[in-house]
Amino acid sequence: MSGLPRITLELRDRSYDIEVGVESLGRIGECLAPILKGKKIALITDPVVEPLYGARVRESLTGAGFSVSQVIVPAGEKHKNLGELERVHEELASARIERSSTLIALGGGVIGDLTGFAAASFLRGIDVVQVPTTLLAQVDSSIGGKTGVNLRAGKNLVGAFHQPRFVLADVGTLASLPVRELRAGIAEVVKYGVILSPKLFELLENEAESILNLDRDILADVVHQCAAAKARVVMEDEREGGLRAILNFGHTLGHAVEAMTEYSRFLHGEAVAIGMVFAARLSAARHGFPAPDVARMAALLKRFGLPITIPEELDRADLARAVETDKKRQSDRVKFVCVEAIGRTRFELLSTNEIEDSLRAT
Amino acid sequence: MSGLPRITLELRDRSYDIEVGVESLGRIGECLAPILKGKKIALITDPVVEPLYGARVRESLTGAGFSVSQVIVPAGEKHKNLGELERVHEELASARIERSSTLIALGGGVIGDLTGFAAASFLRGIDVVQVPTTLLAQVDSSIGGKTGVNLRAGKNLVGAFHQPRFVLADVGTLASLPVRELRAGIAEVVKYGVILSPKLFELLENEAESILNLDRDILADVVHQCAAAKARVVMEDEREGGLRAILNFGHTLGHAVEAMTEYSRFLHGEAVAIGMVFAARLSAARHGFPAPDVARMAALLKRFGLPITIPEELDRADLARAVETDKKRQSDRVKFVCVEAIGRTRFELLSTNEIEDSLRAT
Repeated sequence: MSGLPRITLELRDRSYDIEVGVESLGRIGECLAPILKGKKIALITDPVVEPLYGARVRESLTGAGFSVSQVIVPAGEKHKNLGELERVHEELASARIERSSTLIALGGGVIGDLTGFAAASFLRGIDVVQVPTTLLAQVDSSIGGKTGVNLRAGKNLVGAFHQPRFVLADVGTLASLPVRELRAGIAEVVKYGVILSPKLFELLENEAESILNLDRDILADVVHQCAAAKARVVMEDEREGGLRAILNFGHTLGHAVEAMTEYSRFLHGEAVAIGMVFAARLSAARHGFPAPDVARMAALLKRFGLPITIPEELDRADLARAVETDKKRQSDRVKFVCVEAIGRTRFELLSTNEIEDSLRAT
Repeated sequence: MSGLPRITLELRDRSYDIEVGVESLGRIGECLAPILKGKKIALITDPVVEPLYGARVRESLTGAGFSVSQVIVPAGEKHKNLGELERVHEELASARIERSSTLIALGGGVIGDLTGFAAASFLRGIDVVQVPTTLLAQVDSSIGGKTGVNLRAGKNLVGAFHQPRFVLADVGTLASLPVRELRAGIAEVVKYGVILSPKLFELLENEAESILNLDRDILADVVHQCAAAKARVVMEDEREGGLRAILNFGHTLGHAVEAMTEYSRFLHGEAVAIGMVFAARLSAARHGFPAPDVARMAALLKRFGLPITIPEELDRADLARAVETDKKRQSDRVKFVCVEAIGRTRFELLSTNEIEDSLRAT
């Protein structure tokens, strides 16, 4: 136990707690026993995570009196689709999951998003608990209720807002992450620093090595800061009517880069790193974001081994059009998140032509 | 214009109006112009309805300044699935439907349910307008926000609660219904009489011939009464926490009959008619529902050409198990809606064995 206080995300009847801890997976049963409606749980995970943590989670749950069935979803972003959702739904029906039952998402962002949408839509909505095992999922996707799957036309174009009942983030699980995935998750951590917290940004600059060496106390502190920041944003703007869109910093171009490279070349966080540097340069050109801060950002991302430039071979006009397909589009303009200073953001609507020009200029 | 007052379904920020009229389809553009957020509409319909009413609706919409794209979904319950949903989503992405756009469901229950769920899930939720063209959809499925698709494991097991922005029911469209479908819709009309309104039940007994002869004033009166009844129930209990479940009268067995006959032998309303008579007999045996009222119900349904007995060849044990797969299940018991008198309902939880015994007894 790291002793960090639980974070409460308050949304009236949809409020829930987020617990960030060290080696806390084995306590999930006791965490959930007081809050779940029924005793039936379906644990959704993937073939990579299941052998690592499946037994520990199941034992804790059965020890707390739950009956647990399990659904395995193939690992990887390309399985986050409606076909796989249907397969999960059919398995939930076979396992006799009912309205009082709960789904648990044990895994990274793909498992969390798919399981969240499965819970949002099965029997028109049942409870879900998020147990994120990747850094990206712990600091971002497990919190705030955005769920969904991809279409051929783009990422996360289908889904629902469906808040979890509880989030348990055990930073101990990060030790099993492939180093590339850990680094990709750090891109989202850097994002919180850039858009919301100069203090976090500096902590990352000072403790980059400790983080990469998986110092648990520092990791727990960092994840806790990010989760709390995300929770604050979601409390103010659950459905992304305004403020919440700042979390898309780096994502608008990032999604397009992912789509144009068919979700196979870059991890999500890597594409976001590229998108953040692009957004920072755009901000420098249009909103006086200081050039030295662009350099600090790029340097920090680079220390974490993240890519910071758009691949040469991606055609800029195609990329600008891919950005426009993004769901943040408003009529013929795309909403970009810019930064005026580290910790301070603003929105800007850009046309496809302006995006293309900016892409050519950077 | 029939001159019937608009029904307002009040649900705070999700309130909306229901207009029941005669030959009112051509006014849809002016109805929607003051209330929709954006100017882009995707009209979702099927190959049967499109040639009848597509042009009239599109002309009215474009006349009111909307730009309209169209998606055709194959007709029939068997296309109400996640595969078809995905195809619709991909077409919406191609048509560049965005967050401020609106889907219009023009058709019967299948189109309404599928379009409603498409709207609930595209970009995590956009607006939908229901324009029901079948009696069943006008009195029931277009109102109240239940949307969804079928799994192999059962009907409507996947979906969302997503209230429409407006409902326009033109009873003029009922003239183009195949007579079998009109009669199937009347099953739901009879249902409102049985569970909520002795007055409506008597009107149906007195005016059965006029209804079957498509007397427009009487049809509009009947549809208006049913829509108002449904709206009242939904206002009291949007998410089916209690009261709303009375609308499932006849549906619990009905769904099982549909599933066991592979959604091909009976129309939904026909299966509901069978289910209602079963529920009435169960109510007579257990809750003193008067035997003469069982006979009145059966006689009325029969006058409308509806089936009232469970096919001999359906194995009763299989049927009882099929009932248990229904999503209204609570642990190992199924919630049945019973009637104590015409206009007065009560719930009862039954085990699979009790259901099987009752099925054998009727």
